[in-house]
Amino acid sequence: MSATKEEITAFMAVEFPQTKCVVESVDETGAILSHDIGINELRPGGTVSGPVLMSIADVAIYVAILGRIGIVPLTVTTSLTINFLRKPSADARIIAECTLMKVGRTLIVGEVSLYSEGTSDVVAHVVGTYSVPPKLA
Amino acid sequence: MSATKEEITAFMAVEFPQTKCVVESVDETGAILSHDIGINELRPGGTVSGPVLMSIADVAIYVAILGRIGIVPLTVTTSLTINFLRKPSADARIIAECTLMKVGRTLIVGEVSLYSEGTSDVVAHVVGTYSVPPKLA
Amino acid sequence: MSATKEEITAFMAVEFPQTKCVVESVDETGAILSHDIGINELRPGGTVSGPVLMSIADVAIYVAILGRIGIVPLTVTTSLTINFLRKPSADARIIAECTLMKVGRTLIVGEVSLYSEGTSDVVAHVVGTYSVPPKLA
Amino acid sequence: MSATKEEITAFMAVEFPQTKCVVESVDETGAILSHDIGINELRPGGTVSGPVLMSIADVAIYVAILGRIGIVPLTVTTSLTINFLRKPSADARIIAECTLMKVGRTLIVGEVSLYSEGTSDVVAHVVGTYSVPPKLA
Repeated sequence: MSATKEEITAFMAVEFPQTKCVVESVDETGAILSHDIGINELRPGGTVSGPVLMSIADVAIYVAILGRIGIVPLTVTTSLTINFLRKPSADARIIAECTLMKVGRTLIVGEVSLYSEGTSDVVAHVVGTYSVPPKLA
Repeated sequence: MSATKEEITAFMAVEFPQTKCVVESVDETGAILSHDIGINELRPGGTVSGPVLMSIADVAIYVAILGRIGIVPLTVTTSLTINFLRKPSADARIIAECTLMKVGRTLIVGEVSLYSEGTSDVVAHVVGTYSVPPKLA
Repeated sequence: MSATKEEITAFMAVEFPQTKCVVESVDETGAILSHDIGINELRPGGTVSGPVLMSIADVAIYVAILGRIGIVPLTVTTSLTINFLRKPSADARIIAECTLMKVGRTLIVGEVSLYSEGTSDVVAHVVGTYSVPPKLA
Repeated sequence: MSATKEEITAFMAVEFPQTKCVVESVDETGAILSHDIGINELRPGGTVSGPVLMSIADVAIYVAILGRIGIVPLTVTTSLTINFLRKPSADARIIAECTLMKVGRTLIVGEVSLYSEGTSDVVAHVVGTYSVPPKLA
């Protein structure tokens, strides 16, 4: 039932046309995404906007779920908690590493560590819960 | 030390130039914002994108903080939890009602109920924590 | 399908025998509970222990759910977020006011404001999500 | 400024006299704790009570903070988010592994994975934020 990186990338282009996230890798345990940072993602002072980080994490969990259970359009976010830990770089891509912590019949929980590319310090950490149609999980 | 709606609106135009949030009202206890919904805020199927809702809530708490402690550029979000409760309308503005729950010396906590304009059901609920420079809170 | 205060109190005595929570009122929209504070609930310095507050909030949402959908033993907490806002009194009961924000087919979300009895300031705020068996919600 | 396992254990006996948590190991990056499970920690049906898990996680982050910044009595929890992922065993100790994600001047953020001893599946995951007096962090 799992989906490949190519299948997911094609699906995301339709389902999330606005996202600039790129799927770097995905398997049944999680996914790694990258996201370019430019003027649209920055706030004055050179900080990556918080909602941009939330958005990347949200997509990363979504991609990881597709990688696990296949293309399931009805998957929806039910809750998301983000902790902002450090100021991201204005000059580096954001890398999102998602690990699925629970894959239940109707609920899937993933965590995401967000980095500025080239550093090992987590700039933000996210835990998100997604609801999936009961038959498919 | 509090700031008026006009002062906040002028500050937001500089600090958050990307936001489409409009400050409808603000006082020392909270703020009400609105946000137009158009093609950029929607996902296929006509749902308002989750990150758009997070972004509106984030701005709403920020505005409420400015309304309480005045224009403090160094205020930053430290954590945010969102629960998605109902599908928002694709045809209505999002209204965000923020109430400050705690205004401490270094931490401020606010909650936000997000509605589709014209309905009373909450589409998403947010609790956010913000760090402010110690001397100003 | 809803349950009365008396039915819930009887059920809680079996299901949560350790809890000292008292159901003060409950209806289809929420519940109010109280909890005595004594030496077992305090930490040195006279603060009510954080886990005691979490526990009261957890029970409050559980009771509110029973008040809405009836006695459903398989209801389980899936997530809970607590923000500690003020130091509770060591000499007053804790009052928990729970409002159900969403009652879905499989997920119920409630929020709880916790007070020291006799004050109007919230000492802690909780949002909790509960999973219920699909047929009963 | 860090504290040893023995110093922390002695401090905890005074500061958290009710806790049954045992500090297994602690260093500047995190801590591992264990907690016996008996009749007082179980709910009917053999599930470890949710508030017991929250309490263990709360203590685990507290211990990790002491291990990093030394014995600082004024450290307080400001927020905690728990996701319940699997049913814990009724017959095994709970093991809590805490990693500090951010150690800031006034805020420290830790995450905790809770296991039933002898299994590798996480039964609950916690992210907690603690406030520390500015001079000591």
